Amino acid sequence: MLKAAICTIGDEILIGQVLDTNSQAISKSLESIGVRTETMLSVGDDTDEIISGLRSLLNKHDIVIATGGLGPTKDDITKKSLAAITGTKSWHIDEEQEKIIVSMLDKRGIAHTRDNLNQALVPDSSEVIINRCGMAPITVYRLNEELFANRPVLYSLPGVPHEAIGALPDITADIRRHFSLTDIYHKTIVTFGIPESIMSDMLSDWEEKLPEDMKLAYLPDTSIGLRLRLSIYGGKREEEEARINDEFAKLVPIIGDSIYGSGNDTLESVIGDLLRRSGKTLSAAESCTGGMISARITSVAGSSEYYLGSVTSYSNSVKQGVLGVNQETIECFGAVSEQCVKEMAEGVRRITGSDFSVATSGIAGPGGGVPGKPVGTVWIGISSPDRTIARKMVFTGDRKRNVISFASNALNLLRLEIEKYTSGNTSTINN
Amino acid sequence: MLKAAICTIGDEILIGQVLDTNSQAISKSLESIGVRTETMLSVGDDTDEIISGLRSLLNKHDIVIATGGLGPTKDDITKKSLAAITGTKSWHIDEEQEKIIVSMLDKRGIAHTRDNLNQALVPDSSEVIINRCGMAPITVYRLNEELFANRPVLYSLPGVPHEAIGALPDITADIRRHFSLTDIYHKTIVTFGIPESIMSDMLSDWEEKLPEDMKLAYLPDTSIGLRLRLSIYGGKREEEEARINDEFAKLVPIIGDSIYGSGNDTLESVIGDLLRRSGKTLSAAESCTGGMISARITSVAGSSEYYLGSVTSYSNSVKQGVLGVNQETIECFGAVSEQCVKEMAEGVRRITGSDFSVATSGIAGPGGGVPGKPVGTVWIGISSPDRTIARKMVFTGDRKRNVISFASNALNLLRLEIEKYTSGNTSTINN
Repeated sequence: MLKAAICTIGDEILIGQVLDTNSQAISKSLESIGVRTETMLSVGDDTDEIISGLRSLLNKHDIVIATGGLGPTKDDITKKSLAAITGTKSWHIDEEQEKIIVSMLDKRGIAHTRDNLNQALVPDSSEVIINRCGMAPITVYRLNEELFANRPVLYSLPGVPHEAIGALPDITADIRRHFSLTDIYHKTIVTFGIPESIMSDMLSDWEEKLPEDMKLAYLPDTSIGLRLRLSIYGGKREEEEARINDEFAKLVPIIGDSIYGSGNDTLESVIGDLLRRSGKTLSAAESCTGGMISARITSVAGSSEYYLGSVTSYSNSVKQGVLGVNQETIECFGAVSEQCVKEMAEGVRRITGSDFSVATSGIAGPGGGVPGKPVGTVWIGISSPDRTIARKMVFTGDRKRNVISFASNALNLLRLEIEKYTSGNTSTINN
Repeated sequence: MLKAAICTIGDEILIGQVLDTNSQAISKSLESIGVRTETMLSVGDDTDEIISGLRSLLNKHDIVIATGGLGPTKDDITKKSLAAITGTKSWHIDEEQEKIIVSMLDKRGIAHTRDNLNQALVPDSSEVIINRCGMAPITVYRLNEELFANRPVLYSLPGVPHEAIGALPDITADIRRHFSLTDIYHKTIVTFGIPESIMSDMLSDWEEKLPEDMKLAYLPDTSIGLRLRLSIYGGKREEEEARINDEFAKLVPIIGDSIYGSGNDTLESVIGDLLRRSGKTLSAAESCTGGMISARITSVAGSSEYYLGSVTSYSNSVKQGVLGVNQETIECFGAVSEQCVKEMAEGVRRITGSDFSVATSGIAGPGGGVPGKPVGTVWIGISSPDRTIARKMVFTGDRKRNVISFASNALNLLRLEIEKYTSGNTSTINN
């Protein structure tokens, strides 16, 4: 397997001012073509540090991807470092990149400064990949055995995240061409509701019987749930797809409706698909989740097709006055109760006229816990044209994590109710 | 200045499954006591990689902080690596940490397995910092000149973010004790509404006249705004505080009410403070922000004291039916208009009975743009007991970034209106 290293350059990362998200995006992208990242390194805006860091990475890896340090003010330092490493003596202006710089400056009404135009200056010994999202070109150095015995390839990318990420398809295509990689085929299914440790127990028999060339990975995420990825190295794409689908199909009797989608599906995107397909609409009534459910539903582009809106009833007066929850319900059972959350769900359906609704009432913390209803308790209510149900759950995180857990579990329960209503057990694996 | 390095251990980071947020948290924490992080390194769960990575860092830095690789299943590999580096031969159970492990297992109703209890096993040559947030103890190795000429200190932390972050106060206290650092005094003020590039132009005269021992840093954040930090190395705390406050006070005539707080203040926390102090209440009516404003307001613990709730009126029917926006308003001016957003703000104040309200209506994208109202357009409305105002703004991000910009600017406009209503120009610098 090819070995890669990622090097981010910039003081802003080392002093903690900026979170490095490029390294993750790059390693994910490399992983998807079967290249394993073995080292990630961050160094500051210091020529010696950049040179010694990159040299040590180039000595031990086939591919080194550097990001950052290419802005107009930092230009000299990174380019000098790359020149020192690659033995570059002569430079030229890349005309295509220069045109892009000029057009970007013109669009923003900014004068063409020498600093800006110099960003198109590249070493003669490099190949250029045009940066269409920004000004600094991406440069590729194929290093010979006189410099590095292992003949690695060095890619230099801008540090701005959308420019670095924008360059990844070109980088992976170049790696494929240059290194003739083993083909890799991945497929991911997405589940919610079964924690990783319990899932791995439930799947141990199935996992043991997997064909030898298939590898399983668990990818947990608080908002999305637990993704299961099967990978096959080598082989033909069409055959592998069918083989992986066969293995995933065997999971349905084991983990059933915890499976809700595949690939990059999220709870909110799948809820959107279900509603769009069935022509139904949705609303929400949130107390403890404070707007997060609504924010997640509307994070899906096009959600206005099926989402009517929500009421965040943080105070009891809004629960009563806007949603029509009975005063007696709150007095007898409290706001965090089965009765209240059902009335909230039904109330928001009534005032918005939606087909489905989801409601939450709970105690996110740190204060507000009472005997029998500790911090972390949530009641989730779902109202559909058929019925209104409620479920109680208890979590043990801090305020922030509790709210995410409340919202994710409410969306999952909503997803299950919509699935039941619209078609029974929709198989979502082979989408 | 002391030189530090951070090393994260774990395949999950290298394959891009997990975003490394620990390194940023650690480097920020080190920076706050005047220790500069010079290198960040990530290596996989491989003994040789861990040993060679840590060795090279220890050779070049005074402090090395390693995180990860301490879970019950990975225990052997990290501990073996640390033992190899530090020349450790003998081990013992740390009794205090063992008690914490037992009590955590008991709470979760999990049997005490050998794997779990072994997490309390520590090298005799290490000092232990108790981990109160998790099972794996934090270990400290003070390395002598026979092993490393520069006599560095190595800290081994768990990889789970809240455990690693939970350990940082103990780590920085230990560094202070061990290294007798130059005192550093920081103060940060928080601003919103002036972009970094314009701010640096506006402040150039002021910055030039700063005393030589003061250093200014710009810390931009899409949600919080632009933080300005002044740092002084050395000197006495009380004097420095007064000197820095004097310098910050000079900013008021230059950037005025863009300053909204200090330290870790956020727009939502400052709005909460203003409302609590004045005994006033708040509600929200959101269209394009979809619930994000409400979610941010309720992310502040104790927000139920002043926040009554919100209506997400994603559809025009909810704008009319729940908020009472006139049908003619939408027909004549559209939902994204000054008139509509004012009626939304007034409507949600009326139905919730709040003193203040904030409302948004805009086009987040990617679809929905029309001539005169391109994607990125937002109308923000604020209603107070005195008056209702509206402002239009246009942003050029993608859907996600636009929604964050809409919400942040709406919260800032709300903050300004509450400030004006409650007391005129409250000085928030000396809080």
